[in-house]
Parts: sequence; structure tokens; C-alpha cells
Amino acid sequence: MNAPRVSTGHPTLCPVDISLKLVGDRWSMLIMRELFDGVSHFDAIQTQTGASPQILSARLKILEAGGILARTPYCERPMRFEYLLTEKGEAFFPVLFALRIWGERWCKPRGAVAAVDHSHRTCGVGVTVELYCPHCDQAARQQDVIAHPSGAWTQERTGKLARAKSRSNG
Amino acid sequence: MNAPRVSTGHPTLCPVDISLKLVGDRWSMLIMRELFDGVSHFDAIQTQTGASPQILSARLKILEAGGILARTPYCERPMRFEYLLTEKGEAFFPVLFALRIWGERWCKPRGAVAAVDHSHRTCGVGVTVELYCPHCDQAARQQDVIAHPSGAWTQERTGKLARAKSRSNG
Repeated sequence: MNAPRVSTGHPTLCPVDISLKLVGDRWSMLIMRELFDGVSHFDAIQTQTGASPQILSARLKILEAGGILARTPYCERPMRFEYLLTEKGEAFFPVLFALRIWGERWCKPRGAVAAVDHSHRTCGVGVTVELYCPHCDQAARQQDVIAHPSGAWTQERTGKLARAKSRSNG
Repeated sequence: MNAPRVSTGHPTLCPVDISLKLVGDRWSMLIMRELFDGVSHFDAIQTQTGASPQILSARLKILEAGGILARTPYCERPMRFEYLLTEKGEAFFPVLFALRIWGERWCKPRGAVAAVDHSHRTCGVGVTVELYCPHCDQAARQQDVIAHPSGAWTQERTGKLARAKSRSNG
């Protein structure tokens, strides 16, 4: 396979590393927050994120090239575009939501008001995010999740170690 | 409350924005990947992330100051430290896991081998991540999650709009 080349300059199999090429900075994540909030116009995204026009434009291009959003004209004169999440972009929701849950719980002063509460339509109770086993149809505790690195991934990591060792001996 | 000041230079209630002060770049996320993988020594984290010593050192300091990791000596001569996740750091797992799941599904070539499979100890089936309702004790579909912005958050956003408008008129 053609694995993308990322941080180390070598191909990687790591989905975290690969994803971060698209969403690995605060501006991209704040833009995603706005898109999920239904804010789709350049000026409005800029106002809410605080990004400069140059930064916002650059990040929107990366997100578009990465297939996360689609740019559609909504006005011809002057030509204006709106930015809408694709299926790939919509699928990012759990990542942003998990970050939101973690941030509310761990990064804000105790007793601070939540920015947004998310409730379950069925019962009104606050929704959270969990590791989940589709077979047992239940939330999975972190200690009950077993990691199985693939041979190729183990090889990638071993290769990095070997190169580091040969550099330090060289 | 004293809300942290972030991207816009104004205080914010947004947990995403606040979290991103700590983990809002690719290096921090790659460091978190390593820590969750049990890699805790500076050189080993550097080898696997590809970060320069300067970048790694700066990011580790931010993560330590943010209470995500604790630095503990494991060797006295020469003095060496290991970096271990705190409870706050451990609680970040769903964010990284959600990014991993998304990246495997959406950012890698079709048919590419997964870096790591995560199976449920109980049944051996692959674990995923889901929005979850603790009351109904079941996964929640995104369309069944209702967002309720707090008054203070609505006010924060309205304030940004008002300031943007007054700047463009000024």
C-alpha cells in the first residue's frame, strides 16, 4: 500500500498521525466546532474562531482537499461560498464531542457553567461518549480493551528505533 | 467565574477551545499516543513521534503544567525522567481513540492494514467509540442528541458578533 508520509518523513500506518495532517491544529478543530454548529460562512467562522482571514482560508483549503468539507456558492455577486461538512466530516463528530466532554470535565474551573449541554432526545439525560462493543452492545471499560498491533505497525516502530540507534552510533 | 482567555483574546466557556491550549497541535497528540502506548522515556518518545528535542521538551512542559502528565525521576546519574499520564491524562483516552477510529476509517487508503486493532476482552470483537446515554444505557445516534447552549455561551458568541460588527463599521 502507499502509506502517507507524515511527521517522521517516513510512511506511516498510524491513523492518528495521518488524521493530524488534516485536523492537527487548534484552528482546524475550532473550524470543525463551527461547522458542526451550523456556521458555514467565512466571516461568521472567522468571528467565532478568532482566526485571521489568511489562517482561516488556508485551513479551509486543507479541510476541503482532505474531503472533510465541501465549498458551495450561495451568492453570485459578489461570489460567496458556504462550507458544509461531507460524510467524512460528519463522521468526525465523536472526536470533537469526546474533546468537549473531556474539556468540560477536566479543563474548566470547578463549577463553571457548561458551554453546551447535550441531551438524549428519548429521555432528556446528558449524553456522553464511551468506548463501545457492538457485539456485547454495551459500553466497554478501557481496561477491557486489548490492543493488537499489526505486524506492519510493529515493524514501522522497530524501524524507527533501528534508525535512531544507527544515527546515534554514526 | 474566571474563564481562561484563548484564541480570540477574550475569556471563553468553550471546552474545545480551552482543551486545545493543551493538546491543540499534532506533536502533543502524538506524545499522548506514545504515553498511552506505555512509552515514557524522552528518547523513545522522540524516536516514535519524530519531534525534535526542543519541540518535545516544550510540549512535555505544557502537558505537565496542564496536569496531563507527571514527570518522575527513574535514574539519578545521569538524572532521567519518565513521563506518566495522570488521571486527567488517562481520561483523554476516548479523544485519541475516537481520532484513531475516524482516521482508520476515513483517512487511510481502502484496504490498508490497521495499525492496531482493539478488541473487547469479553468477546474478542473490535471495540469502537459511540455517543452514549447513561440513562438508557445505550449508544445514542448523533441525530438523537439535542444541543442546549447555555445563556452565558450564547452571550459569548453574540458578543463576538457585536464586536466584529462594530469593527467593520469603525
